[in-house]
Amino acid sequence: LKIFSLNSNHELAKEIADEVGLELGKSSVKRFSDGEIQINIEESIRGCDVFVIQSTSQPVNEHLMELLIMVDALKRASAKTITIVMPYYGYARQDRKARAREPITAKLVANLLETAGATRVITLDLHAPQIQGFFDILIDHLMGVPILAEYFQEKGFKNEDIVIVSPDHGGVTRARKLAERLKAPIAIIDKRRPKPNVAEVMNIVGNIDGKVAILIDDIIDTAGTITLAANALVENGAKEVFACCTHPVLSGPAIERIENSNIKELVVLNTIQLTEEKMIGKIKQLSVAKLISEAI
Amino acid sequence: LKIFSLNSNHELAKEIADEVGLELGKSSVKRFSDGEIQINIEESIRGCDVFVIQSTSQPVNEHLMELLIMVDALKRASAKTITIVMPYYGYARQDRKARAREPITAKLVANLLETAGATRVITLDLHAPQIQGFFDILIDHLMGVPILAEYFQEKGFKNEDIVIVSPDHGGVTRARKLAERLKAPIAIIDKRRPKPNVAEVMNIVGNIDGKVAILIDDIIDTAGTITLAANALVENGAKEVFACCTHPVLSGPAIERIENSNIKELVVLNTIQLTEEKMIGKIKQLSVAKLISEAI
Ligand SMILES: Nc1ncnc2c1ncn2[C@@H]1O[C@H](COP(=O)(O)O)[C@@H](O)[C@H]1O
Ligand SMILES: Nc1ncnc2c1ncn2[C@@H]1O[C@H](COP(=O)(O)O)[C@@H](O)[C@H]1O
Repeated sequence: LKIFSLNSNHELAKEIADEVGLELGKSSVKRFSDGEIQINIEESIRGCDVFVIQSTSQPVNEHLMELLIMVDALKRASAKTITIVMPYYGYARQDRKARAREPITAKLVANLLETAGATRVITLDLHAPQIQGFFDILIDHLMGVPILAEYFQEKGFKNEDIVIVSPDHGGVTRARKLAERLKAPIAIIDKRRPKPNVAEVMNIVGNIDGKVAILIDDIIDTAGTITLAANALVENGAKEVFACCTHPVLSGPAIERIENSNIKELVVLNTIQLTEEKMIGKIKQLSVAKLISEAI
Repeated sequence: LKIFSLNSNHELAKEIADEVGLELGKSSVKRFSDGEIQINIEESIRGCDVFVIQSTSQPVNEHLMELLIMVDALKRASAKTITIVMPYYGYARQDRKARAREPITAKLVANLLETAGATRVITLDLHAPQIQGFFDILIDHLMGVPILAEYFQEKGFKNEDIVIVSPDHGGVTRARKLAERLKAPIAIIDKRRPKPNVAEVMNIVGNIDGKVAILIDDIIDTAGTITLAANALVENGAKEVFACCTHPVLSGPAIERIENSNIKELVVLNTIQLTEEKMIGKIKQLSVAKLISEAI
């Protein structure tokens, strides 16, 4: 068994290796002068079960190509099995033809990973669980909710004081799962999104009056949805608002919006490694290393 | 028949469409806030023979993913055939395992293009012609030499005054082809390259004394090889030195090296669109639009 890290999640990869009780495999991922990726695997992996840790987070196309080239190299170096550990699955939101002549990039990515030679994929909280069916190879789909639930349990809120809120209809199942673990009721924000990366908040379904509201989503990207939701919750009588998600994409205006929002604390997982400037005081990051190491 | 352009070669795509007598197909290639590629095909292509113009030049991973996603969208929009016109084939230099555990990225790219749904590929001067065999779909391999030969013919040199020079052993066949068209002899530079992107010039095989030397290569990347070759030629008695290539990658120190070199003029093709800062006086760019339009 060998574990290799590419460039997206060095810290998590190190933690996973520690959990499993191994050193990370020796390899280097560099760029030639013209930007082409140069990969060197610096130890024999012949006959090994190899795990490669890489999220297709920003810069997504660089991270995806690093992964594909690494898998190609591992295959040609006679790895016995090649498991891709992709804590965050990029392009997951392009998972269906919503309009005519759209690509289904989430399926394309699945095909590319298989073509390169992956034999198994481990991932967390796919934007749509149907993406599992895009693969003909083994796929393990892990859940971030237990980690988030445990964190909120430790805060010692009384069950009757909290409410779990889904920022849209698509997220109700997820909110339900967190609510079950925290033995709390749920509420739903009834919103309409006029175009991508723009969110609009409507009214609230459920009772949030005087409660500690915990918003949950899978991905927080530009943070438009979640911050407008937090405002709506406070305006409608919530006592305070926490937010949590599995995948902190946090692109564009996200950090500024979170800073200026009513969100007291944003709890995220480390499926995506946060850059220095994103590590603001309001954001708490929890590790998925143990969860992933158990699946290895 | 429809021709679409992605982001690598808008000018060439326009020229090709003009040669064929068509408007370019309507499409847009944008980025979401998190850097993911968003493609929109804005006209019906059902049942059409579709051509997509895209070189996998710098930024290579962005350009490759744009292409793969476009092909996926075209396939799902019921294109009859999808021909990729890739004037410059990126990753072509990673075409074999030179060391243990290296990837063969040129083959991986071929597999990815087929997986996405391409039915035919048109390209120019592959770094190794063997890359044609990496494809199970149709591939047309065009040659830039006739365009370069025509340009030098028009300069009106006497045949006996010129010599075509290959900057390394690998390029002798290419030099031979240009030499045949210009009815000139050839010479070879005997060099050793200690590591990637670093070139070292040795001695010259063949007679260059008092002659106009025309260096030819397929790719000029950091321009180390070609500028050291030019210096060696002048030191060894060449009257003046021209250089030419099919693919002007021109990364890193290339432009500075060319400016400061003994090269009088560098003639390149437009398989890679040059950015403003690379359009220096010494560089002459010739179009492959006619050559490609004849293959369409
Ligand atoms: N990277 C992205 N950033 C923002 N929106 C996206 C992205 N990828 C896909 N989309 C859009 O998000 C929508 C799907 O999200 P959802 O409705 O939450 O499943 C579709 O309209 C997509 O066009
Ligand atoms: N993008 C690149 N830039 C510089 N060198 C490369 C690149 N891709 C591959 N190579 C190296 O170039 C060599 C192959 O070039 P060649 O010997 O001319 O066929 C191999 O050693 C590769 O590792």
